[in-house]
Amino acid sequence: MAEAGLSVVRLAEFAWAELEPEAGRFDFAWLDEAIGLLTAEGLEVVLGTPTAAPPAWLVREHPDVLPIVADRHPLGFGTRRHYCPNSPPFLEATDRIVTALAAHYGRDERVRVWQIDNEIGGRCYCEHCRAAFRRWLRERYGTLDELNATWGTAFWSQRYDTWEDIGLPASEPTRDGGFSQRAPNPGLALDFRRFSSESYVAYLRRQLDLLRAHAVADQRITHNLMGFGVGEVDYAALTAGLDFVSWDNYPAGWPGTTWTHTALAADAMRGFKPPRVWVMEQQVGPLGWEYVRSPRRGQVRLFTYQAIAHGADTVVFFRWRTARFGTEQHWYGILDADGVVGRRYRDVERLAAELDELALLADAVPDAEVAVLHDYDSRFALQIQPANAALAHEATVHRWYAALRRLGVGADVVPAGRDISRYRLVVVPSMPIVDEHVAAQLSAYVEGGGTLVVGPRAGVRDVTGAIPNRRMPSGLVELLGVEVVEIASGDVSAGLQGGLTGTFDGWFEELAVVDATSLATYADGDFADGAAVSERRVGGGTAVYVGGAAGEELLGSLFRTLCARAEITVHDVPGDVEVLCLRSGDERFLMVLNHGEEERRVNLATGETIALPKFDVTFVRREAPVTEPVVEPLR
Amino acid sequence: MAEAGLSVVRLAEFAWAELEPEAGRFDFAWLDEAIGLLTAEGLEVVLGTPTAAPPAWLVREHPDVLPIVADRHPLGFGTRRHYCPNSPPFLEATDRIVTALAAHYGRDERVRVWQIDNEIGGRCYCEHCRAAFRRWLRERYGTLDELNATWGTAFWSQRYDTWEDIGLPASEPTRDGGFSQRAPNPGLALDFRRFSSESYVAYLRRQLDLLRAHAVADQRITHNLMGFGVGEVDYAALTAGLDFVSWDNYPAGWPGTTWTHTALAADAMRGFKPPRVWVMEQQVGPLGWEYVRSPRRGQVRLFTYQAIAHGADTVVFFRWRTARFGTEQHWYGILDADGVVGRRYRDVERLAAELDELALLADAVPDAEVAVLHDYDSRFALQIQPANAALAHEATVHRWYAALRRLGVGADVVPAGRDISRYRLVVVPSMPIVDEHVAAQLSAYVEGGGTLVVGPRAGVRDVTGAIPNRRMPSGLVELLGVEVVEIASGDVSAGLQGGLTGTFDGWFEELAVVDATSLATYADGDFADGAAVSERRVGGGTAVYVGGAAGEELLGSLFRTLCARAEITVHDVPGDVEVLCLRSGDERFLMVLNHGEEERRVNLATGETIALPKFDVTFVRREAPVTEPVVEPLR
Amino acid sequence: MAEAGLSVVRLAEFAWAELEPEAGRFDFAWLDEAIGLLTAEGLEVVLGTPTAAPPAWLVREHPDVLPIVADRHPLGFGTRRHYCPNSPPFLEATDRIVTALAAHYGRDERVRVWQIDNEIGGRCYCEHCRAAFRRWLRERYGTLDELNATWGTAFWSQRYDTWEDIGLPASEPTRDGGFSQRAPNPGLALDFRRFSSESYVAYLRRQLDLLRAHAVADQRITHNLMGFGVGEVDYAALTAGLDFVSWDNYPAGWPGTTWTHTALAADAMRGFKPPRVWVMEQQVGPLGWEYVRSPRRGQVRLFTYQAIAHGADTVVFFRWRTARFGTEQHWYGILDADGVVGRRYRDVERLAAELDELALLADAVPDAEVAVLHDYDSRFALQIQPANAALAHEATVHRWYAALRRLGVGADVVPAGRDISRYRLVVVPSMPIVDEHVAAQLSAYVEGGGTLVVGPRAGVRDVTGAIPNRRMPSGLVELLGVEVVEIASGDVSAGLQGGLTGTFDGWFEELAVVDATSLATYADGDFADGAAVSERRVGGGTAVYVGGAAGEELLGSLFRTLCARAEITVHDVPGDVEVLCLRSGDERFLMVLNHGEEERRVNLATGETIALPKFDVTFVRREAPVTEPVVEPLR
Repeated sequence: MAEAGLSVVRLAEFAWAELEPEAGRFDFAWLDEAIGLLTAEGLEVVLGTPTAAPPAWLVREHPDVLPIVADRHPLGFGTRRHYCPNSPPFLEATDRIVTALAAHYGRDERVRVWQIDNEIGGRCYCEHCRAAFRRWLRERYGTLDELNATWGTAFWSQRYDTWEDIGLPASEPTRDGGFSQRAPNPGLALDFRRFSSESYVAYLRRQLDLLRAHAVADQRITHNLMGFGVGEVDYAALTAGLDFVSWDNYPAGWPGTTWTHTALAADAMRGFKPPRVWVMEQQVGPLGWEYVRSPRRGQVRLFTYQAIAHGADTVVFFRWRTARFGTEQHWYGILDADGVVGRRYRDVERLAAELDELALLADAVPDAEVAVLHDYDSRFALQIQPANAALAHEATVHRWYAALRRLGVGADVVPAGRDISRYRLVVVPSMPIVDEHVAAQLSAYVEGGGTLVVGPRAGVRDVTGAIPNRRMPSGLVELLGVEVVEIASGDVSAGLQGGLTGTFDGWFEELAVVDATSLATYADGDFADGAAVSERRVGGGTAVYVGGAAGEELLGSLFRTLCARAEITVHDVPGDVEVLCLRSGDERFLMVLNHGEEERRVNLATGETIALPKFDVTFVRREAPVTEPVVEPLR
Repeated sequence: MAEAGLSVVRLAEFAWAELEPEAGRFDFAWLDEAIGLLTAEGLEVVLGTPTAAPPAWLVREHPDVLPIVADRHPLGFGTRRHYCPNSPPFLEATDRIVTALAAHYGRDERVRVWQIDNEIGGRCYCEHCRAAFRRWLRERYGTLDELNATWGTAFWSQRYDTWEDIGLPASEPTRDGGFSQRAPNPGLALDFRRFSSESYVAYLRRQLDLLRAHAVADQRITHNLMGFGVGEVDYAALTAGLDFVSWDNYPAGWPGTTWTHTALAADAMRGFKPPRVWVMEQQVGPLGWEYVRSPRRGQVRLFTYQAIAHGADTVVFFRWRTARFGTEQHWYGILDADGVVGRRYRDVERLAAELDELALLADAVPDAEVAVLHDYDSRFALQIQPANAALAHEATVHRWYAALRRLGVGADVVPAGRDISRYRLVVVPSMPIVDEHVAAQLSAYVEGGGTLVVGPRAGVRDVTGAIPNRRMPSGLVELLGVEVVEIASGDVSAGLQGGLTGTFDGWFEELAVVDATSLATYADGDFADGAAVSERRVGGGTAVYVGGAAGEELLGSLFRTLCARAEITVHDVPGDVEVLCLRSGDERFLMVLNHGEEERRVNLATGETIALPKFDVTFVRREAPVTEPVVEPLR
Repeated sequence: MAEAGLSVVRLAEFAWAELEPEAGRFDFAWLDEAIGLLTAEGLEVVLGTPTAAPPAWLVREHPDVLPIVADRHPLGFGTRRHYCPNSPPFLEATDRIVTALAAHYGRDERVRVWQIDNEIGGRCYCEHCRAAFRRWLRERYGTLDELNATWGTAFWSQRYDTWEDIGLPASEPTRDGGFSQRAPNPGLALDFRRFSSESYVAYLRRQLDLLRAHAVADQRITHNLMGFGVGEVDYAALTAGLDFVSWDNYPAGWPGTTWTHTALAADAMRGFKPPRVWVMEQQVGPLGWEYVRSPRRGQVRLFTYQAIAHGADTVVFFRWRTARFGTEQHWYGILDADGVVGRRYRDVERLAAELDELALLADAVPDAEVAVLHDYDSRFALQIQPANAALAHEATVHRWYAALRRLGVGADVVPAGRDISRYRLVVVPSMPIVDEHVAAQLSAYVEGGGTLVVGPRAGVRDVTGAIPNRRMPSGLVELLGVEVVEIASGDVSAGLQGGLTGTFDGWFEELAVVDATSLATYADGDFADGAAVSERRVGGGTAVYVGGAAGEELLGSLFRTLCARAEITVHDVPGDVEVLCLRSGDERFLMVLNHGEEERRVNLATGETIALPKFDVTFVRREAPVTEPVVEPLR
């Protein structure tokens, strides 16, 4: 590893059975030896708590450690993440192993970083969770009357007379636009999602407290997140107490993943705890459990640069040597399963050397003038009743984010409620639940001179999941100066005209422009000639409402207009070229990545034209381009 | 409501928990007050029995109230229709609430109509049902020998030695043309479908008897059906004792629904108890649980006229105000969730006023010369073993019905066994089970001078689900004068030639024309030049057999020919224009509806040409058109 | 039957409830009578043991007879194959009925053949199986340490501390390329597949031993297999002790089945026990349980000739008379359900007469110079982790086999490990597990002058399912002279150039040609200009490695080249024309079948040109063609 130029190694994140072969008997000798060998070569050690893989003896003694997963079947021993976060015996066993690890390694200076558990997520439907959910509800609502009123259980005679009557919501919504037989009360379903998320947050916090109690000050604690596609746990809450955020990045692992998906994941993960993050697992080769997908030659290097450009100050490849055994036999590491040095090793070695020479990147952080807001409560609500597939939270946030990024505009992806005052443009693609604090913040932001863009269905629910007793977009009517008069939903589209071009696809709204002007009107359909995108100028600021599920062309047209007004630089580059602005101390420079499979000519707003080979990357100072690409192609 | 021009309001159809907050304690005060307020404004009240929503206390005390649904999972509390129709504690609770309601409101003249339960349907697989099914079988068959012989349990050693061995059939057939691992004995599966249907029929009848025992004579009793797409309960039996039929009409709620589907639903529901029906729930806006679909502007008015034209004398919109809570938050009412008067209210108000002026419609009923027969036993049999997707009962009946309706031919949709003597043309699209009575009736009809058209697979099973020990189409060979010699099934088509044009798609038969002539022959395929559609003239009548799954073109060609012979008027109108003949006393007139998104020119058989705007409707007297459309477009 | 020209009849293969109406009471009178009637007419009797259909009384007394099927639900009474092969009460009941049958009919000379059970297959997940699996593992591994080391349970903390902790693997892999939540340890999953297969093999062996103990010497014993598509039981092991192999052939029963699929099934079934087989069930008409597919006219005759050409010396049609009852009401027999003589009867009668005159066929056996190897261990491994859909075992074997057969090249389909020394060409399309014996055999074969072609991923796992600690293709690197350096997988293709044309689709590999030459190189993609297909000449032989999932064009190109070198005759015929070489004593002749729907002109390598009507067959002697087709078309 050291020879290859690697400097960090992660260990033991699933090794519970090796560390605690039976309840209460610990064996750290092998790990001590491994850490000794590795640190002797100058490698820094990241140590995982192994709780994502409860051992057989624990499951045997306490079968109620196992979770009941969404289809109501138990998840048995023999895979991973087979635990319920509310199971008392599991919490007890967690305390024991984490305390023992912390006591043993908490003063060991060779361990630089703790990783808690691994890729937390899921929902459990077991009896422990049911009981905990009832306690959670009792705490939240105090009385059943309050709960019944909030959920509106008068509908369909769902009133609860005892806390014991409250069950867990049954199923995910159907995928095909049909009707699920078990469609639950949305208030119940929303609260269960919050409860589930909080259960995992509390579980991580429990480990965090144990580690803090033992670890020396300069051991830092993290958890590896899974990107923007995971919607079961509120990552903003999960990461709140950590020293830094890390995440796992497999850009070529799933069909349909494009560079904007990876960029969104990177910016969203960084958004929880800026300015820098780690990539704790970076794809280094082909991968898959049952089916395998491989990166193209040169992409691992490109992905690594992309990760760094989006704020990673450490990138840890997964994994060193391909596993000869187990579910991840097809998850290729730097070495093949036989341990032989091959092409992937040589590529990594060369990349490590290349990066060592790039002092420019050492302290660089992304430099964004735009914020994209997202929100887990809103996401949970949309999981329950999406209303239209075109309104899905992740896809909508991605569509808006990608439209900005294809213009070369840097974007921070920020959980709602954080300070947004410093941005020139703030966009809110998908926020059915807008709490009062956020509404006030958005108002203040506009009044302070900012440009705000709000997507359809904002405020369509209150924080309880109910439809507010107010006009839509509720809480924002005054700020935006519009009211929604009627909606259209289905396999429908509407063309736009006026200042913007493009379409709304799947969902669009008829707007009453009460105190605003029209940025674009409907060109056809039932709402023809009515306002489709509105704009209200207030103070020095602007508040824009987008009255439908905007397609790529429309978003590009809109953001180009607003960036021009807000004096945000836009680059006219091919769709598979990514331009990022970075800041390193006082210096600013552009990083340009060609994600395409052909050489691309890139005309930057700074005036230079660059010919960039496929899967290659280069740097351009804001004033003048570097004459040559800083790095040689690997091919 | 009164201001909007509404005259009827339905109440309390899911309000069990409000009416009986705990077992045996009733609270009618709030309902009394509501009825008082509403009737004071001149509204008529429809009162629902709330049994589709058993309250939490009942489920808590008697968990066996809950049904086991088709995938063998219990349907828990928290949705609706969570009851087993054979559960003794549920029947007891039903008796208590219905008796209390009937005792309280049965003499209340302000309540004009009772609605029993809501949208009855489903199948339950619980132990109560299993036991009841055995009792039902014992009653039907007397001895196990008889049951074994009828079901042919010698096949695959399925002989039952005790009644207790008899289980419920496992699963629905697979959708994709594959083999279900659990394909049950068809005799068992058919009887279970009959038993399930009869269980719900008995459940409705139980409530009906209780209401009759208390209600004053002029309170009428109904139940709201769900259209033609629901195949779990024999609606002919379900509606037998009701005073009138009502149904729920959501024409824009499901993808793929066209005007002929809605027309079929309307005619089929009316067919159970002609001449007039109610629409108890009429779509008034966008709707959906998880995903939402919206009508186009003008369609709610058009749908309302369509419902009236098909025999509705009352149309009740669902719902007044959009629910702020619960699963149906996206089921938009006349008012938005905030109670504000908006576009939907104004549209309804205008429509109500418009209809008030149309005295013509007050007593108008559809005037049909054609009958389309359908049959629930046949439908159940096809659910078990469809043989070919092209033979599915609902789709086949729709295809035949739509072909007639696109010619402007009025059609009654009639359960098999009713009197058909008055029709000029009777079609039998899909009837694998033809009982002796129906066979005799069809014979008599033809001998009496009628024109009969029978579709493929008629008589392919006897009433027990077995294949008869006779030539196909069994029971009709003499009447039709043909025998089926061989079949072809799969992803296959066959072209036709001779008197008719078009194709059979998916299924077609080789016919031996024993005592008939050929109306069309096969143009290609294995049966080339053989008869494809046969005709036997007998007495003054004609008996036609269609030897395959006829496509749209073929059915149009066939019905055009037969209508010409039978002197039934045909209109050559665009495919999205609906023409209906209505009778009001001695007066007859045509109603013309443009379901298309463009203005259409309509050339009627009466000689007039009308230019009809999109989504608009007009009336034409048989002798001469009214000079102007009676009503103005709403747009 | 005798009048129709039939000579064999199979009886009683599901008649357990009739033969043993209650535990231990047997009734053979009806069967004695039936056998008497049939044999009096000269028919030979095949008698089935009825164990595929356990009767109700057995299930009632011993519910643990029922299996738990893959989705973890019990398979209830009311279908067939509802037994667990490891259930003690089922084994006891099996012994009783089989012993009684054998004692009664084992000396009855009228019974010529025994069929054990019917279409054995499936996997059971019940507690009996779980316990038996543990015993099987204990026997295989001796100690838990050995098991843990072999399965690599250190990964994800899956170490087993007690035998009781070992559960059954959960689920099949997902179909869509996604990640199954329950992806099991591949070592565990592979062993479970072996155990399940061995359970059925032992179950058949148990019946075989009982029959052998009673049956006279010239009663022969068989079991009816299900063709090449069934991958749950190792047919090579299952058939080991049988007197001959029989199988069930429904060529028009499933969508997507082409003549090469049927030919592969026939050759693979024969491959277990050459040179001759029976077809125990041959499609004679339309068929299906829920959905029906029908053969084209003339295909039943064509399919019968095809079966004979591939080595069937007896073909038994299924079934005599269409069942009036039960799941197979749509499985059409020679007679319709009403027992009337119709077209299918006449076709069979004519075919029987035709075959009686074809003395040529009486002792003819297929004459193949090529062997296609397959392997159940490899198949099981690919079921668990396919890596790419293009690598699926059955589809890959079919693709290679079909490419040979479309050249008119005869191919034996042979389980790995059998003697291959006599073939001119041996191909190994899909063998991730290559045990030492097979590797040595392949080496010897090449050294002995043979031509060997090995497909991608050979040797990618060792016999335990682990990735070997060696270079790929492990065990064959020296023989083939190549190493795999990198892989590419996904929705990707690569073109080839050089000596061959075509593409790799889905999966391809970068090869280091260590001791071989390149037969073709990559034309594009990441491995452009590198070797794609390699060739190593050693002794008189040739060893070829194909470094990707080869498409049809590439395989045709490759096999044409290799056949030319190996002096194997190739015919340039249309794709739907099948050419087979048969040997009857010293005489050799070609059989030519036109599977197409049009007449085809066929230019044989022997120089003759034949015009063959659709669905027709003819014979050509190797020296000169017969002047006329031997048989008349049936149409």
